Amino acid sequence: MSPPRQVFIAVIGAGGVGKCFLSQLAHLAQNLSCSPSAPTYLSLIWLSTSQKALYHADYKSLSNWESELQSSTTAPLPIPQLAEYLVKAPGKVVLVDNTSNQEIAESYPLFLKKGISIVTPNKKAFSSSSQLWQEIFAAAANGTGVGGYVFHESSVGAGLPVISTLKELVETGDEVRKIEGVFSGTMSFLFNSFQPVNGGGGKFSAEVKTAKEKGYTEPDPRDDLNGLDVARKLTILARLAGLKVESPTSFPVQSLIPKELESCSSGDEFLARLPEFDGQMDQLKADAEKEGKVVRFVGSVDVPKGEVKVGLEKFDKSHPIAALKGSDNIIAFYTKRYGDNPLIIQGAGAGGEVTAMGVTGDLVKVLQLLH
Amino acid sequence: MSPPRQVFIAVIGAGGVGKCFLSQLAHLAQNLSCSPSAPTYLSLIWLSTSQKALYHADYKSLSNWESELQSSTTAPLPIPQLAEYLVKAPGKVVLVDNTSNQEIAESYPLFLKKGISIVTPNKKAFSSSSQLWQEIFAAAANGTGVGGYVFHESSVGAGLPVISTLKELVETGDEVRKIEGVFSGTMSFLFNSFQPVNGGGGKFSAEVKTAKEKGYTEPDPRDDLNGLDVARKLTILARLAGLKVESPTSFPVQSLIPKELESCSSGDEFLARLPEFDGQMDQLKADAEKEGKVVRFVGSVDVPKGEVKVGLEKFDKSHPIAALKGSDNIIAFYTKRYGDNPLIIQGAGAGGEVTAMGVTGDLVKVLQLLH
Repeated sequence: MSPPRQVFIAVIGAGGVGKCFLSQLAHLAQNLSCSPSAPTYLSLIWLSTSQKALYHADYKSLSNWESELQSSTTAPLPIPQLAEYLVKAPGKVVLVDNTSNQEIAESYPLFLKKGISIVTPNKKAFSSSSQLWQEIFAAAANGTGVGGYVFHESSVGAGLPVISTLKELVETGDEVRKIEGVFSGTMSFLFNSFQPVNGGGGKFSAEVKTAKEKGYTEPDPRDDLNGLDVARKLTILARLAGLKVESPTSFPVQSLIPKELESCSSGDEFLARLPEFDGQMDQLKADAEKEGKVVRFVGSVDVPKGEVKVGLEKFDKSHPIAALKGSDNIIAFYTKRYGDNPLIIQGAGAGGEVTAMGVTGDLVKVLQLLH
Repeated sequence: MSPPRQVFIAVIGAGGVGKCFLSQLAHLAQNLSCSPSAPTYLSLIWLSTSQKALYHADYKSLSNWESELQSSTTAPLPIPQLAEYLVKAPGKVVLVDNTSNQEIAESYPLFLKKGISIVTPNKKAFSSSSQLWQEIFAAAANGTGVGGYVFHESSVGAGLPVISTLKELVETGDEVRKIEGVFSGTMSFLFNSFQPVNGGGGKFSAEVKTAKEKGYTEPDPRDDLNGLDVARKLTILARLAGLKVESPTSFPVQSLIPKELESCSSGDEFLARLPEFDGQMDQLKADAEKEGKVVRFVGSVDVPKGEVKVGLEKFDKSHPIAALKGSDNIIAFYTKRYGDNPLIIQGAGAGGEVTAMGVTGDLVKVLQLLH
């Protein structure tokens, strides 16, 4: 029997994903503390939102964080001080970034170099400049460096095993030829409703309104319709497949925001005027229908050609991408080993619980590596 | 920069999967030796088939194993001596069992207790008695013990990320409700051809003959049709989901070998007489067709009810299980987090390269843990 060990956890973000993660963390900590062979104690030593922070100078574990966070009047430390605080903790530290904050993403190399590991669903860190990507993996122990570990499964497809699968294909020497799929729950819902395989479907602008009402879109639906979220995910996959992608705007990305509406001053104005363009969308639908196909918003990486693109494509009604349901994601890996029938992963690609699951799963991996 | 380290690899089996694995191992060894931060040297110190073995008393790496194995006249060591040989290697050892041998499977606890890690696609170890299962994980470092690590991704669905995904669902605290799918490439091919979603399809006995000719069945197709291969995979998944399953014959498994043909003395006699039963199979097909459904051979685990079963079921033509193509596997995880739309993994579930990929992927995991 090994001696018990303690690992310190710092969490930034307590919104939708953050709350779900903290609940999964409590479950995991309970299980790990009971391990018969090698108990591990997880101590939550830092929790912050954009406004407030909870921590103790003596690294005592936080408890009752929900009520304490509400009543806290402590502002978060600036990032360099946070790094100093964490690096002096009496044991290994894992930083869990449950935000989508660019500034925190840019500080990953700093934390990693100090031996602090990072798990996160924050796409920004891995889909911004290729320089940031290189700095992160040059610092990380699972890159070319000797610092902390970094895992980001939930940055693509939430808890679906997309990144781990792609990494394994590459590491075991398969030749990835093409990656294709629906990478946005919002886009999945919009097009599965706008043009169901069995016919029917409403006007595009009406589906956007429904999606917003159901909470499937960002507060301003233009943040989904501009395609940037999907472009960020494709940037990550293309880089893992070995392509050098300068940024998520360095390849063709089709925006579903009509040119004429780009100047709208608010999401509400945009939504009010979107019906003017339903005719164009109906035409796309009718054109696809004539070929026995449906329209879907997809992203793809053609590895041998070095091409990445995001936008509308037509698919046969029997194609797995056409048959997707609800707001599910689907990701197909075409490789030398898998031949004509790709390896496919499918399921919910958004939502607090499943996103947090990818983060917690990554934390488990880091804990195993830190043993 | 860390000092370089050496890990010793012992491989049993040089058949279809074994040969593919050895080729992937060469690729991996090349990559790891070039790692800029922490080079790892993999040394192949043992390779054996059921008849022959290659190894050096001084643990020198094997080279030109293909020609040397052919000309070798050395018989394999008995298992206890092999364990002694490996445990004295001057570094960590990973045993790769690419056989489906029961005796080797039963020796895993012995190797694990001695600190030797195991990666394998051998289903027998994890789907035989629940006692063997317990002994393996009581000895393993990733069970309750402190010995070697054990990974067996390819024991279900070959290289598809089935076992790793199920483990992550459980470890992160999701509630797995049902696991359902097509777990046999042979059964997938047989029923996708016998009753395609769009109509048509041949006589069942003719499809069995075609499958045998294409190399999709075991040399004796009864070894596929009796359902035991699928029952073994379901045993593994049910155990990982937390059910206690005594053995792969302790739950209902439907055999597609007609009672009257159970006494056939050879596979050839069986194949010659199988057409007598085409009428029964056509009836099943017609009954399903009347409901707008198709027949498929599936396995399922109902976790809350503690039920495991394997056999024929009817599926709506729009169901992902009905729409499967070729000899692909499909595995659907229904969980609390994923709700009505399951997490689905789909693709080739048999074949040397993809099975070896699961093994090589497991080896990568063990190497990371052994750091």
